[in-house]
Amino acid sequence: MHFELTKEYIEDLKQIIEQKDEQKAKKLMEQLHAADIAEIYDDLSIDEAKFLFLLLDGDKAGDVLAELEDDDRERFMKVLPSEVIAKKFIDHMDSDDAADVIADLPDERQEEVLAHIDDMEQAGDIVDLLKYDEDTAGGLMAKELITVKEDWDVEKCIAEIRKHAGEIDEVFFVYVVDNDNVLKGVLSLKRLIIADSKKKVIDISNTDIISVKEDMPKEEVVTIASKYNLVVLPVVDSLGRLVGRITIDDIVEVMQEEAEKDYQMVSGITEDVEPGDKIWVLTRARLPWLLIGLLGGMLGAKVISIYEEPLAQFAAMAFFIPLIAAMGGNVGVQSSSIIVQALASHNTGLDSTLVRLLKELAVALLNGIILSVLIFVLSYVFYDNLALSLSVSIALVLVIVFASIFGTFVPLALNRFNIDPALATGPFITTVNDITGLFIYLSISQVIFSNI
Amino acid sequence: MHFELTKEYIEDLKQIIEQKDEQKAKKLMEQLHAADIAEIYDDLSIDEAKFLFLLLDGDKAGDVLAELEDDDRERFMKVLPSEVIAKKFIDHMDSDDAADVIADLPDERQEEVLAHIDDMEQAGDIVDLLKYDEDTAGGLMAKELITVKEDWDVEKCIAEIRKHAGEIDEVFFVYVVDNDNVLKGVLSLKRLIIADSKKKVIDISNTDIISVKEDMPKEEVVTIASKYNLVVLPVVDSLGRLVGRITIDDIVEVMQEEAEKDYQMVSGITEDVEPGDKIWVLTRARLPWLLIGLLGGMLGAKVISIYEEPLAQFAAMAFFIPLIAAMGGNVGVQSSSIIVQALASHNTGLDSTLVRLLKELAVALLNGIILSVLIFVLSYVFYDNLALSLSVSIALVLVIVFASIFGTFVPLALNRFNIDPALATGPFITTVNDITGLFIYLSISQVIFSNI
Repeated sequence: MHFELTKEYIEDLKQIIEQKDEQKAKKLMEQLHAADIAEIYDDLSIDEAKFLFLLLDGDKAGDVLAELEDDDRERFMKVLPSEVIAKKFIDHMDSDDAADVIADLPDERQEEVLAHIDDMEQAGDIVDLLKYDEDTAGGLMAKELITVKEDWDVEKCIAEIRKHAGEIDEVFFVYVVDNDNVLKGVLSLKRLIIADSKKKVIDISNTDIISVKEDMPKEEVVTIASKYNLVVLPVVDSLGRLVGRITIDDIVEVMQEEAEKDYQMVSGITEDVEPGDKIWVLTRARLPWLLIGLLGGMLGAKVISIYEEPLAQFAAMAFFIPLIAAMGGNVGVQSSSIIVQALASHNTGLDSTLVRLLKELAVALLNGIILSVLIFVLSYVFYDNLALSLSVSIALVLVIVFASIFGTFVPLALNRFNIDPALATGPFITTVNDITGLFIYLSISQVIFSNI
Repeated sequence: MHFELTKEYIEDLKQIIEQKDEQKAKKLMEQLHAADIAEIYDDLSIDEAKFLFLLLDGDKAGDVLAELEDDDRERFMKVLPSEVIAKKFIDHMDSDDAADVIADLPDERQEEVLAHIDDMEQAGDIVDLLKYDEDTAGGLMAKELITVKEDWDVEKCIAEIRKHAGEIDEVFFVYVVDNDNVLKGVLSLKRLIIADSKKKVIDISNTDIISVKEDMPKEEVVTIASKYNLVVLPVVDSLGRLVGRITIDDIVEVMQEEAEKDYQMVSGITEDVEPGDKIWVLTRARLPWLLIGLLGGMLGAKVISIYEEPLAQFAAMAFFIPLIAAMGGNVGVQSSSIIVQALASHNTGLDSTLVRLLKELAVALLNGIILSVLIFVLSYVFYDNLALSLSVSIALVLVIVFASIFGTFVPLALNRFNIDPALATGPFITTVNDITGLFIYLSISQVIFSNI
């Protein structure tokens, strides 16, 4: 029922390609969905992929290109002449996917490809879409949609759908507009099918429309689509005129990208990498976080070196250095990630920043006191050293409180200034918390060790 | 165009509720979408919410209940008599949402509520759905769908849609089945509208169906729906008989839940919390991670205490304790999170475990050598202590290699045994890496410091 890619399949396919057996290759590809063919790309050389993809018929070729990952697609396009890109692929793609593909090309190639598109309407739509910032509703939308005039009846509306059905894959709704193309209603095909053929379309439409403006940031578009469970979202300009529609598959893609970005930030990876990527790419994605960690470690060493003398005198002071550093980092990430997740899902509630910080303080004190009592008892049992137990337990409360407040405040502040709050879950905050924690612990323990 | 919840709105609404002004409250609620009303719930007392929600008319009341978050809904249901739950809410909900609501009730209340449902078909559907594990396709699906027989013509099919249109909110496809209810094709309303009314439905249907089995784990369902860009997914039993359908909003919900779960794991939070939650809930969500961190810190202290004597002699050995502990933890989380993310998106490629570990080894060596050279130079410049620089740079390579391999191997192994691989990004691995790192560093530096 679903295609499962295996090593054997790839080997058979590579052999067929090597033999240039077009017949056999075509037949195999006919059995596969475009998403499956795109998946195979990773395991083929670029020449093998070229042979295979050029055998596909129009619509499927376009679908496969749309399904490829961005960097794979860019690499693949480099080996194709502009005319082939235009006629074999772009001409058969939805306008939004086509615009995305062309946007990734170098400027001079963009013009070349556009000039080779046969369908003038498609070329016009693409040029229109290329004007939008890719991080807005306009950058997500496609131009393919069916509009009907508000005073048409059901029969005329159905005739219009028949006329355009070939151009558009999936139609669930038609859009009802006035003479200025201002969006007046949304009509589901279900309502259309069950309605009397003489009814006016506006009378059976849903006029309580949820739409988005063309310049709305894509994160907000996603929030609206997911909050109201929408499968497709009309896009309007500032005058309310219909300019396009965004489908749920694009919404889902943005959602996944945002989630992955936040996940990568908190786990210290700076690029969108997969285990299949090249060694150099994988290394490059990790090195920045580690370099900041290294710098943090140097600063930590500096802080400890200030206390070299007391440490030489009371070596036990060193026992809890890792605990304090780890706790500061952990608590900071916990606090900031709760805020980041809430901001991402727009679930922050109505509390003011002050209320939130006070609440965070309460949570931190509660956690801090529980853990502090525990570490006092445990450390005293194991090391029977009152100075040590006092130092670590007092420092722990302070470190947890500081890291919580800092971890809550920073993402809120970043968000206020329209900077991605997820930055606060990254290396910077963790490192600051580590070092502050060390400083708090060592200064407290120096005083306590010297006086007990 | 979209509702924005403000403090003023809540205050006005609370006043209207206090005055028991049903007319005004009803009017306000009519202007809002169910998702907006559900959002208000958080800011109301349970009695206020009860007053408000019972004013809603049938369908909207059901929709609002479906939109509430699970724990809010559970609390709200406690104050409602079973008969009200059944007649005011359940009777008007989609079968999948209704089954979810009832599944959350205590056993004895489930029977009470079911007994009060007026619509026998609805009650039957719910009882059927309650039999499925909630983590499978069956647990996600709804029973509301329109089926037509393969030998019907378009006209008869449209008549069938008319008959059922009232019961089902959104219909984009009808399902074509044979006399045994085996799924034979999927027919979009678009195809239906443009087809000749005398055509047989099976001849205009898509017979290359992508469906899922009722017992398929929900993660796989999500992968299939998102890979093939499906808006609705038919569910079949082991004989291929149609038993229900899963809509994209439920797919999106699972997707978000999975992403949040992984995010929480890597950021050290054990429950699905929001900043608006109670202090005790927020504390409870963080304490487990911190307790493991505390335990790890105790073990770290134990490791350091073994080296108390050399530390007292060479206090400089302590300088790089935080750096080594942090790097071990960071590298481990990086490695495991790349695997976890790839497993979640089924993007692991075809490499064998051995190939992956070898590749990880190469990445680790590359990162390790770069960082090690850097820390050697930096530490030598700052502290002019060859033993110290040698210790930290040799230990760093080893720590990075160990943490990478361990961080890659553990999630793969967990996944092999069907345990959630995201566990590997959590406290256990970080703590193991911290402690192993300390041990490596201190034992190496003891040897080097004593001999240089």
